[in-house]
Amino acid sequence: MRVINVGRYVTESNDRDAEALRAVLREKGVLLINLMSAPGSGKTTLLSRTIRDLKGQVRFGVMEADIASEVDAEQIAALGAKAIQVHTDGMCHMDAGMTGAALSALDDYTDCDILVLENVGNLICPAEYDTGAHRRVMILSVPEGDDKPLKYPLMFRESDVLIVSKTDAAPYFSFDFKACCERARSLNPEIRIFPVSAKTGEGMEAWEAWLTEELNRLRRA
Amino acid sequence: MRVINVGRYVTESNDRDAEALRAVLREKGVLLINLMSAPGSGKTTLLSRTIRDLKGQVRFGVMEADIASEVDAEQIAALGAKAIQVHTDGMCHMDAGMTGAALSALDDYTDCDILVLENVGNLICPAEYDTGAHRRVMILSVPEGDDKPLKYPLMFRESDVLIVSKTDAAPYFSFDFKACCERARSLNPEIRIFPVSAKTGEGMEAWEAWLTEELNRLRRA
Repeated sequence: MRVINVGRYVTESNDRDAEALRAVLREKGVLLINLMSAPGSGKTTLLSRTIRDLKGQVRFGVMEADIASEVDAEQIAALGAKAIQVHTDGMCHMDAGMTGAALSALDDYTDCDILVLENVGNLICPAEYDTGAHRRVMILSVPEGDDKPLKYPLMFRESDVLIVSKTDAAPYFSFDFKACCERARSLNPEIRIFPVSAKTGEGMEAWEAWLTEELNRLRRA
Repeated sequence: MRVINVGRYVTESNDRDAEALRAVLREKGVLLINLMSAPGSGKTTLLSRTIRDLKGQVRFGVMEADIASEVDAEQIAALGAKAIQVHTDGMCHMDAGMTGAALSALDDYTDCDILVLENVGNLICPAEYDTGAHRRVMILSVPEGDDKPLKYPLMFRESDVLIVSKTDAAPYFSFDFKACCERARSLNPEIRIFPVSAKTGEGMEAWEAWLTEELNRLRRA
């Protein structure tokens, strides 16, 4: 498990870099997912469960972006997946140049089927930068509240998938799932929504089916 | 309840502006608190309970900073406190110029004892900007996890107070309070830590005592 610093790779031509990275990965048949959420929504927990559930079917490579610490990459590496910790040098988001640098440090990623960029925990800035991912997935956890689409609209607009996580904690919080879905869909009518609990496993199958179908779709194209 | 846009007030001389704002407020005997956390940690809920608990003792004025929506300011105004919604025009944090602009829009704030700037929900960028507040208070909610000081060190370093919120949900989550405190104090030995549940009221008294003592301290100085 290695740690690299990428905070200085910011470029002015991010969109072009992102498009180039996306094309290279498509050609190699490797799906790149940009996984975003607020701090503590359960990105690493969801990812860990997904990797375990799909073991033997899908080979994962994970880039864990954080300002500091290595706890997330250690957790992923312990599952036997390829993992690298990316320190953003204080930056609040990942962009395409930083993602490309992280990918080069993840040696021989072509033996992976799906690469996941676990972005910095932040509902704002990561939504503004194209990282070169083929799909953007965001998580909103039940304890955060159903009003978040109202307050952080860009993230909901830019995401292909909304995972509503920690559904097992629903009895403890007043989270209106229907209102949350309506708010998200009024910003983004195409968004796919999966309620899941990585703790109990509820809802994981539908999310994992979407993920493997996306991989198949990329390889058919 | 009014809404203003302040996203364009960013200045290069933020520290000077912050110092000037702090001095003006000190002279008027008004305490300014910068309240920060990730999205959904319970800033507005904590503040609502604090305003209700201290009704008749402390007059509050609140600036609710969000990228979009007015739900938070409406909730605060319904309690009878002075409230203004500040839209940051996409910006992920508040700085001193933006805070000054928000203050001027909160007409006659001198009949308030304590002003609270509820910053944009974000554990990263707000920690980098001095808003002119006398004290910085951050919230970490139990569902977010006890590892957050490892991942977002600057916020813990820059805060005078750490409120650990949603303690009522502790039975549902594996949150190690002692480990969290140790991690926070290793970054910031002086940080005051208050575990609270704004739902049950547990721990509110200690936090409110600190707040009123800070007001007295400012006025004695």
